Amino acid sequence: MEDPILIEVTRGPLVESWHRGAVAVAAPSGALALRLGDVERLVYPRSAVKALQALPLIETGAADRFGFGAAEIALACGSHAGTERHTHLAAAMLERAGLSESALGCGAHAPLGASAANALIKAGETPTQLHNNCSGKHAGMLATAVHLKEPIKGYWEAAHPVQARVHEALADISGLPLGDDVRGFDGCSVPNWAMPLSAMARMFAKLVTGQGMTPERRAAVSRILDACWEFPDMVAGKSRADTVVMRALPRQVFMKTGAEGVYCGAFPELGLGFALKIDDGAKRAAAGAAISLVERLYPAARGLMPVGALKTWRGHEVGGVRSSPLYEDALAKLKV
Amino acid sequence: MEDPILIEVTRGPLVESWHRGAVAVAAPSGALALRLGDVERLVYPRSAVKALQALPLIETGAADRFGFGAAEIALACGSHAGTERHTHLAAAMLERAGLSESALGCGAHAPLGASAANALIKAGETPTQLHNNCSGKHAGMLATAVHLKEPIKGYWEAAHPVQARVHEALADISGLPLGDDVRGFDGCSVPNWAMPLSAMARMFAKLVTGQGMTPERRAAVSRILDACWEFPDMVAGKSRADTVVMRALPRQVFMKTGAEGVYCGAFPELGLGFALKIDDGAKRAAAGAAISLVERLYPAARGLMPVGALKTWRGHEVGGVRSSPLYEDALAKLKV
Repeated sequence: MEDPILIEVTRGPLVESWHRGAVAVAAPSGALALRLGDVERLVYPRSAVKALQALPLIETGAADRFGFGAAEIALACGSHAGTERHTHLAAAMLERAGLSESALGCGAHAPLGASAANALIKAGETPTQLHNNCSGKHAGMLATAVHLKEPIKGYWEAAHPVQARVHEALADISGLPLGDDVRGFDGCSVPNWAMPLSAMARMFAKLVTGQGMTPERRAAVSRILDACWEFPDMVAGKSRADTVVMRALPRQVFMKTGAEGVYCGAFPELGLGFALKIDDGAKRAAAGAAISLVERLYPAARGLMPVGALKTWRGHEVGGVRSSPLYEDALAKLKV
Repeated sequence: MEDPILIEVTRGPLVESWHRGAVAVAAPSGALALRLGDVERLVYPRSAVKALQALPLIETGAADRFGFGAAEIALACGSHAGTERHTHLAAAMLERAGLSESALGCGAHAPLGASAANALIKAGETPTQLHNNCSGKHAGMLATAVHLKEPIKGYWEAAHPVQARVHEALADISGLPLGDDVRGFDGCSVPNWAMPLSAMARMFAKLVTGQGMTPERRAAVSRILDACWEFPDMVAGKSRADTVVMRALPRQVFMKTGAEGVYCGAFPELGLGFALKIDDGAKRAAAGAAISLVERLYPAARGLMPVGALKTWRGHEVGGVRSSPLYEDALAKLKV
């Protein structure tokens, strides 16, 4: 079965390119409110599950031990833009755990934010591991190891207790074994376990409803979600969708992007979670599909993100990125 | 009919993403040596037809009038990297036609080449229209208007004689009417006419064999192709596939990338042209599919371009970009 076309890219009178994908919207029970494409195929959630990867930071007591507040917790859940605000906070988290940048295992890359990247180039500086969009996640992971007196060496490896705790949280909430047969490694070196989009959507529905969780886990999840809604700029960065939408609709929409065309999120008031994956991994299509879904459920989100016009370098509109008729139709029929 | 998967992106034990597309390899007669996917659907060739868009520069006598040699002609066919070598030559072309950067209508964008882009940022300079990857094409187009004493205003518009000449060349060699119903506009503002991949592949086969052309047009085409093989660094830039492959295999392989996942090229010795389009527009897939085809026909091309390993930010291989089994199989069966 081929996944349907979710996003079309037009130019002049023709559709020039298109993106196929699958979308699941689910209740905590697993009942699907929307199902497009193959939602049972295994998908790496990538950075879309950073909020779950941060659970041990709360549950081990490491966040309290090192005085991490909502901003630090949000940064641990974020794919940040690498601005000074982000890198300074990641450095401060490491410092409070008695560590420095060199303890990170995420590797270095240029800041995701263009102005932060340009500022580095202009200053003639090389990106450090703090600029890696995952440095907050890694600082949080390191803090758990220090707090529990574990060796920090190889904390990113699947066999290390740090990742075993992440695995336990993901397996518990997803209800899946998440064995080595579905384990890949993320660009920042930590393991990432693939699961069906249907399970991912249900997992996010559980996250925002607390259903099926112990009171302790439920409290930890609440603290994480509240942190992201309080500091959405730590989750992504100025003008990026996750930040803009969560700032406008706190406690109504949680959303988090992942690499290779993944988007996950949830709607607490509606008791629903969602997960989508664009087959080809295109960011423009994943963002377009996620925003169309959010706008359908929360009309207040309309106009928050720039519409998908394609323009010449002199600013004339010559095409656009839009939801396909099939996807629009499925969204229109979505009953919540 | 869905296009087949041409390129797979793996991570750990799974295929994480994939790219569908269509490929045509054709003789000048139109006979297809390879046909995968829907090769009759309309596709904008985008920058892949710059060598044809440069024909009026030769045929009007403008290149000779302004003393443009092989380097200038190659730049007119190029999607250049925006280095000083490229921008200086584009500026010199304009100057010889009595014009300057302000005459260009392509608009400005940051250099495609990372080091050129970073050098501009470091110097605190804003990209000019000369940095636009199409500035050589536009300088050539402007030269034809000046040479023929046409107004240069709006030279990028479909109704202007400059674009009418480009249209005549494309319609003649493709054998298609190329009406307004298939006309879109490129990012650099000039018109771009969609045609089936089968027709595009045949057009490139004609280009390198001269079949079906007047002796004058055949001579102009030869001059253009020779210029690209003599100055492949003007067609793209250091370490980019078109430059690297054409430098290694002049007169054996002509290849040119286009936006939104298009690749075209030809093999003069074999009398074949090719055209491919990735449905979703991904550059990684178009380049991978084109290079696999070239490597199949010219084993000497193997290893010229870096293989498609996906690595963590610390340099460990965690996945890869590869041709699909179906595409590999089709290439293995390709008889030339």
